[in-house]
Amino acid sequence: MNSSREIILQNRVSVDITIDPLSRKRYVELKPPSLQDNQADVDRLLSALRDCCPGLHMPLNLMNKTSEVLRSADWRVTATLACFGDYWSVIDVEPGDKTGHHYGLAIDLGTTTVVGYLVDLTTGNIKLAAADYNGQAQYGDDILTRIYLAGTPEGRAQMREAAVATLNKIIARLAKGGDIGQTDISAVAVGANTTMIHLLLGLDPSHICMAPYIPVVNRPGYIRAGDIGLRVNPEAPLYALPGVGSYVGGDVVGGILASGLYKKPELALFVDIGTNGEMVLGNNEWLVACAGAAGPALEGGVARCGMRAEMGAVYQVRIDRRTGKVTYRTIADEKPAGICGSGLVDCLAELLLAGIIDRAGKFKGDKSEFIVVPACESATGRDITFTQADINNIMRTKGAINAALEYLLESVGCRMEDIETFYAAGAFGQHLDLESAVTVGLYPDLPRGKMIRLGNSSGEGARLALVSGQARHEAEEISRSITYFELNASEAFMNKFVGSKFLPHTNLDYYPTVKEKLKKRRLNAQ
Amino acid sequence: MNSSREIILQNRVSVDITIDPLSRKRYVELKPPSLQDNQADVDRLLSALRDCCPGLHMPLNLMNKTSEVLRSADWRVTATLACFGDYWSVIDVEPGDKTGHHYGLAIDLGTTTVVGYLVDLTTGNIKLAAADYNGQAQYGDDILTRIYLAGTPEGRAQMREAAVATLNKIIARLAKGGDIGQTDISAVAVGANTTMIHLLLGLDPSHICMAPYIPVVNRPGYIRAGDIGLRVNPEAPLYALPGVGSYVGGDVVGGILASGLYKKPELALFVDIGTNGEMVLGNNEWLVACAGAAGPALEGGVARCGMRAEMGAVYQVRIDRRTGKVTYRTIADEKPAGICGSGLVDCLAELLLAGIIDRAGKFKGDKSEFIVVPACESATGRDITFTQADINNIMRTKGAINAALEYLLESVGCRMEDIETFYAAGAFGQHLDLESAVTVGLYPDLPRGKMIRLGNSSGEGARLALVSGQARHEAEEISRSITYFELNASEAFMNKFVGSKFLPHTNLDYYPTVKEKLKKRRLNAQ
Repeated sequence: MNSSREIILQNRVSVDITIDPLSRKRYVELKPPSLQDNQADVDRLLSALRDCCPGLHMPLNLMNKTSEVLRSADWRVTATLACFGDYWSVIDVEPGDKTGHHYGLAIDLGTTTVVGYLVDLTTGNIKLAAADYNGQAQYGDDILTRIYLAGTPEGRAQMREAAVATLNKIIARLAKGGDIGQTDISAVAVGANTTMIHLLLGLDPSHICMAPYIPVVNRPGYIRAGDIGLRVNPEAPLYALPGVGSYVGGDVVGGILASGLYKKPELALFVDIGTNGEMVLGNNEWLVACAGAAGPALEGGVARCGMRAEMGAVYQVRIDRRTGKVTYRTIADEKPAGICGSGLVDCLAELLLAGIIDRAGKFKGDKSEFIVVPACESATGRDITFTQADINNIMRTKGAINAALEYLLESVGCRMEDIETFYAAGAFGQHLDLESAVTVGLYPDLPRGKMIRLGNSSGEGARLALVSGQARHEAEEISRSITYFELNASEAFMNKFVGSKFLPHTNLDYYPTVKEKLKKRRLNAQ
Repeated sequence: MNSSREIILQNRVSVDITIDPLSRKRYVELKPPSLQDNQADVDRLLSALRDCCPGLHMPLNLMNKTSEVLRSADWRVTATLACFGDYWSVIDVEPGDKTGHHYGLAIDLGTTTVVGYLVDLTTGNIKLAAADYNGQAQYGDDILTRIYLAGTPEGRAQMREAAVATLNKIIARLAKGGDIGQTDISAVAVGANTTMIHLLLGLDPSHICMAPYIPVVNRPGYIRAGDIGLRVNPEAPLYALPGVGSYVGGDVVGGILASGLYKKPELALFVDIGTNGEMVLGNNEWLVACAGAAGPALEGGVARCGMRAEMGAVYQVRIDRRTGKVTYRTIADEKPAGICGSGLVDCLAELLLAGIIDRAGKFKGDKSEFIVVPACESATGRDITFTQADINNIMRTKGAINAALEYLLESVGCRMEDIETFYAAGAFGQHLDLESAVTVGLYPDLPRGKMIRLGNSSGEGARLALVSGQARHEAEEISRSITYFELNASEAFMNKFVGSKFLPHTNLDYYPTVKEKLKKRRLNAQ
């Protein structure tokens, strides 16, 4: 797949961390045993390592290898130790000093796309990235189908195997590209929404979509990689970023971690629009969150001419307000085949600014659709159009986001203008045109310098958890401190949602730059 | 097998313990989740249990079950928690209050015989015992053959499977007899010598019998029962009593634990004569130990008419010193088929006291053997005899024990008469006639009230470790504090051994009651 769009990480946010990874390598030179010093092999190694790592275990199936390597390497070995929460375990023993060769894997496990980052654990830096589509899609593109299928033990096994197969493909590519063995990967951290974590671990997600929406687990903690069939060191820990609830998962907690907003006094808003939309509001003192199904309209899956952000997708649209001429750009400059999410938002914004639709999102006059790409230019040989129905869908998504934000603000007694920083997470947030997103009211109207694209913040959160014990500790704290509001059951939210009918917002004063633009263009700015 | 001789436990030593078993059962009534309280199922249970057990984990494969049981049992469940050293793990979740139904298994895994005790963990008491021969014997009666075979991965697998099959047979019998399910056994503790632990866990024992005699591990700690195929709760911990070295294993540490000698100020000697002979000398301030191959001569495996302590074995012999008439008793009062260890020691003592042999162990006159059972009375139709060669073998074993004791005493600057209490461990120690053992010098000549038979102290040590965290802690302390002397490499020991040629001892003053007996019978008491 064209992975470059998925794996980009933002570097405008830099989080200070001490490198203290999920696995450690220690080189030790042991005194050989003698008649006077008859400590056993495993005990000898463990007691030398316990200085740097108290409460250390060794799995049974590493004991014979330990004895062999100690004896063949003249009692000079490198041990790999891995964290399992309240205890550490020796997960590998290699001859000689191998401390410079130390790798981990950070994963963003998305519903659609899976990204893996091979991380050099001596520096904490990414050495290589690889992405692929989530193999679970063969059983169902949308998450509800997968939840339904995973209601049986057989279905759960299928879902787990599909996710693990995708990860193993990525692992094989990373190992090959990075010129390391797959079992050299000694620690794994994963950011994913709650359903995806359930499906990866073979857990029953059935109760996620039934009130009161309670998952099997939000903090699965540290799982032995071999227990789910991951082809890295089988004893390696797989750490799942903790979730908050059924609809605010470890991917969001990872995003909050990557943004650093939980450490700053200023009020910040974090929004991740993907298949679901999640929103976190807060600062270093409190965090509130909510979520809702946002995605389909913006993922290009619902619009008549919508498509995924793949080759040939129209991702940018401009309408000359004087001539009405449409210009567009496509991914990889291929012949246009459809419109992806960022293209749809661009369309909507440009139609508003060109006066073709009104603030209620209705075509003026008798128009009922807008031709973005004429048939003669398109790859399909048919017009690529943007219809009233498409507009209504995006308006609903936008309305839900507006309503959710107002609900959150009200619940903590803050106003829209109190928001000081805005973080846009995810691939969609990365590629969306900021001006268009503000114009249609999807993003708040803040000084652009205070609007930060985080890129794949779920993957970046996983990388932080992989390379820093402090980051893992903070992720646990974040997941515990977030107050989650369940919108599915909220009448107040529904009222706001129904009332949220205009572009960019019912109250245009919340969007001063958009108001200015509309005024300039002599469009109705009431 | 006739197990009653193997499974007897001594009750003259009672160790005060607080019942705090390797696994715990806790009944909890959880608040059901709601929209306002959306904690996930597993997290909800763990947080309720963490009050009584911090640092609690749950294995992945119990998470779905947890969710199911919580929901079907109306959030009222009994969790079984198990200790894995530095952390605890939830290993079962049952509906309702099952705290009264709580079982563990204590094992004495001997080279020849395996004994299992089903322990009620609510009281710490044994509910049932069962014994069987170690199935490894099919590959080799003696331990050296098994060590040799276990030098390859395939051989190790065979040995492990044979030991586990024996244990699973015992477990099935205990579960049936105790009217419980096999998976109701939620914790296992095992006492065994170092080689047997290696063979049970599939570890390579090759270095145990090569200088400097270093095992793979002395403190294997807590192993998941399912990882070696034990048919109890697969998540249950199997705790192996820690060993000291290749020849002083967890069975001896368990014996010291069961004796309580490590807590008392008086100088005590602990002797376990089985296939190997082990000896520990010490008190609450220090402990020294040594070991050597002792067994064959006394296990009845070497003597011409020797046999195991099975039905028909002569276990008691008396010689009327006036008439020379021999009386004997056999196990189960069957027709005599051979002489077991205690019978051999009896023979030797009675021959000395009857003046048939001298203190050097030589037949007087031109005799070269002694008929214990004439052909007409024996099950074999042949005389059952006790020969000069048999005497020489037992003398060597006895000599080794004397030499080892003197070596230990000398190494700590104590004398024979400083020993205040003597503990005899194991089945052999249980059935040996105390007077005969003293007469031939196998046991020290102490006031008989200070000579304590511990019975199956390896099994009792396992039971203590199973029911008490304090006992496990003390076992670890004992294994760390014992100073082990390797006799295989000691010239001083060899000199003592060679010099240790008389019955009961070269220096008869060490054996005042035997000296008295010999004098009374007008036998040479120089």
